[in-house]
Amino acid sequence: MSLTSSSLRIGIAGLGTVGAALARILSRRREALARISGREIMVKAVSARDRSRERGLDLSGARWFDDPVDMAKSAEIDLLVELIGGEDDPAKSIVEAAIGTGKAVVTANKALLARHGAQLAGEAERARVPLAFEAAVAGGIPIVKTLREALPGNEIIRIQGILNGTCNYILSRMETERLPFAEVLADAQRLGYAEADPTFDVGGFDTAHKLSILTSLAFATRIDAQAVHVEGIASITPLDLAMADELGFRIKLLGVAVRTQDGVEQRVHPTMVAKSAPIAAVMGVTNAVSIDADAVGEITLVGPGAGGEATASAVVADIADIASGRLSPPFGLPVGELAEPARAPMQRHEGGYYVRLSVYDHPGAAAAIATRFGERKISLESILQKGRARKPAPSLGRGSAENAVPVVLITYATTESAIRSALDAITADRHIAEPPQVIRIERD
Amino acid sequence: MSLTSSSLRIGIAGLGTVGAALARILSRRREALARISGREIMVKAVSARDRSRERGLDLSGARWFDDPVDMAKSAEIDLLVELIGGEDDPAKSIVEAAIGTGKAVVTANKALLARHGAQLAGEAERARVPLAFEAAVAGGIPIVKTLREALPGNEIIRIQGILNGTCNYILSRMETERLPFAEVLADAQRLGYAEADPTFDVGGFDTAHKLSILTSLAFATRIDAQAVHVEGIASITPLDLAMADELGFRIKLLGVAVRTQDGVEQRVHPTMVAKSAPIAAVMGVTNAVSIDADAVGEITLVGPGAGGEATASAVVADIADIASGRLSPPFGLPVGELAEPARAPMQRHEGGYYVRLSVYDHPGAAAAIATRFGERKISLESILQKGRARKPAPSLGRGSAENAVPVVLITYATTESAIRSALDAITADRHIAEPPQVIRIERD
Repeated sequence: MSLTSSSLRIGIAGLGTVGAALARILSRRREALARISGREIMVKAVSARDRSRERGLDLSGARWFDDPVDMAKSAEIDLLVELIGGEDDPAKSIVEAAIGTGKAVVTANKALLARHGAQLAGEAERARVPLAFEAAVAGGIPIVKTLREALPGNEIIRIQGILNGTCNYILSRMETERLPFAEVLADAQRLGYAEADPTFDVGGFDTAHKLSILTSLAFATRIDAQAVHVEGIASITPLDLAMADELGFRIKLLGVAVRTQDGVEQRVHPTMVAKSAPIAAVMGVTNAVSIDADAVGEITLVGPGAGGEATASAVVADIADIASGRLSPPFGLPVGELAEPARAPMQRHEGGYYVRLSVYDHPGAAAAIATRFGERKISLESILQKGRARKPAPSLGRGSAENAVPVVLITYATTESAIRSALDAITADRHIAEPPQVIRIERD
Repeated sequence: MSLTSSSLRIGIAGLGTVGAALARILSRRREALARISGREIMVKAVSARDRSRERGLDLSGARWFDDPVDMAKSAEIDLLVELIGGEDDPAKSIVEAAIGTGKAVVTANKALLARHGAQLAGEAERARVPLAFEAAVAGGIPIVKTLREALPGNEIIRIQGILNGTCNYILSRMETERLPFAEVLADAQRLGYAEADPTFDVGGFDTAHKLSILTSLAFATRIDAQAVHVEGIASITPLDLAMADELGFRIKLLGVAVRTQDGVEQRVHPTMVAKSAPIAAVMGVTNAVSIDADAVGEITLVGPGAGGEATASAVVADIADIASGRLSPPFGLPVGELAEPARAPMQRHEGGYYVRLSVYDHPGAAAAIATRFGERKISLESILQKGRARKPAPSLGRGSAENAVPVVLITYATTESAIRSALDAITADRHIAEPPQVIRIERD
């Protein structure tokens, strides 16, 4: 890459929503960007699947490449922006071709980074080129810059984020309109907030990709996306949201990374957060990340997690940093100094739990259940029983949902293994009509 | 300043809460900081008023200077941290001595920057040394970095911030406990959240200093602290907070800077914000800043605005940026390229208003008041009258507060001058028993 003060020549691979927005912003902010970074930033090459598609862009100064790898290798650009997506080729070969031929790389590709981030950072380090990815996590929120540059005086204790707008939109509407998951999902699909195949979003996998990137930045470890414990939101019911509300909580799909004695615990699951927590107030498609750190305390960043212009805004920030010569190692430290991740096993997770049981309305059931928790030294902070069953259960362990009544228990801090063991025992006792619902509580 | 990879030698002027926290963080994060910035960061000199005071710090490697200006000039340091405060000397001479002898400067001094920021940035630019001040605004929140580096693709439309923890603490307690201003202030003073002379905080002046710095960063203008319209929170009553609540608002002391057709409007005043706005959820001493920008939309940063460790965390971030060679002009652009501020006059401010009147309970009063607004084309969104007066007013324009009833009006967008003119007319009509309460509404 040219580090002279001459112009910085950009090649954009991918002209979807984000790529088109990027081209528009680079055009309308051309003068401002030149003043800010001290050099002109020009789109000199583009590559996308369909050349003929009308995008409303003036790309007359840019050369068209049918093959993005050719563009990545071309001597006509100094910096490649990868906006194609996907964890493997063509995105990976494009990025590697650019790095291998001495170009700076800016990417919004969280899947690629989650899988190959440490390897690509190593290649960029050896080639002495910048690799930047602000847009890969939480769209327009400057969370990567914050973790990489704003907190060097801190040991990070925990990050927790609402990193998937689709899930937060669905949970927000389920809560405010008291609708079941399937109905809101269908509506979100109609409105374009959810994909035809929603698994990647509602199953928590998109959040897991993004979390693994933040974990690496926060804890100076190599990315370990495989270590993330992942649960989605499909099991959440309007009843859970109503119970949460009554108990002073909201339910959010969070990505959480915590430093523990056993290593870094990375998990994605529906989470009970106190209504007073800043992250609890974040509704709809908005994203948010809260960072707990030893010196600064808690800081929270809130903003749009997706959308063409918002995501392109983050891409432009990376480009301007590179144009200005403001460089950081991709994950904050040279790759060789990133620690091998020590995975904290999920069974040892410690925290409070919300447990909702569908309990047969039968004398002695409550006492028997309480005993199972007590045997495992699980203390209960509150118990909430709503009404009575439509019909009492005919006898122990027999009947259907209509013979059962919802009972919600909030536990004090305990371990995942203790909870699982207690619930196994309660299930074996045949006091419950349905599998238990378990939602972890994240304390402030 | 030495830009080699040798160690970076720090001198700290001021060892109060922030200075002591800084020394502690630089000590406990010594190894991590060396890895992050690629060079060792060492405290080599300190200066404070009282040498004998026990601070619990090991400063054995640092030379003591009785005169901080001598320290600033000393060849034994590369970077000076100014934590003395105050808009003039000694802080100003210390910073100028450091710049004049080629040192990098990091300061947390908002008053100094509000008054002399553009001048000092010019001196730093001529001397080719960095001048950084993340800690000067909103403590541990990385708002300076965000405005300077994270949004180059955006035209900023508006910044609004809760920038003074004392005011937010007082308003939060007034709201939740329904207590009058004076009582909560006295309590805050007892608890150390407010100064013995609270004018600087509760009068809005501290917020104005911080706002003027953010305005310069956001709108690429020279700092113009004199242009800030300032109102404090002493006039806010529990009744206003209760009325706000009923109407779906919270009252916050905000610093707001908005781009208008007439230039940049800078104002500090109690503000009605919709409860759904992210900034509305921020309670207690916490600070927050929301940025509206054309590409990214709205992003909000929330965190501790004060406190030794939180503020020192921001100072360390500046030091690490400088140690790593990640440099930006202090206000984002070379000083010569910052625009002269075009002040938007407050009379032309446009927005909605909350107006609380103490209206004599007399037939025709409501109609007469509505007429005065109507004459000025001010449309009313809602009118709220609570109960009736204890005694009806004896006659037009006569009586006391006990003959009056509170009436709250929410207007649609209008101008400051129209509101003032309407209220002057209503006062002249002698329909109100007390001066009107006027609170501007900030829409999402």
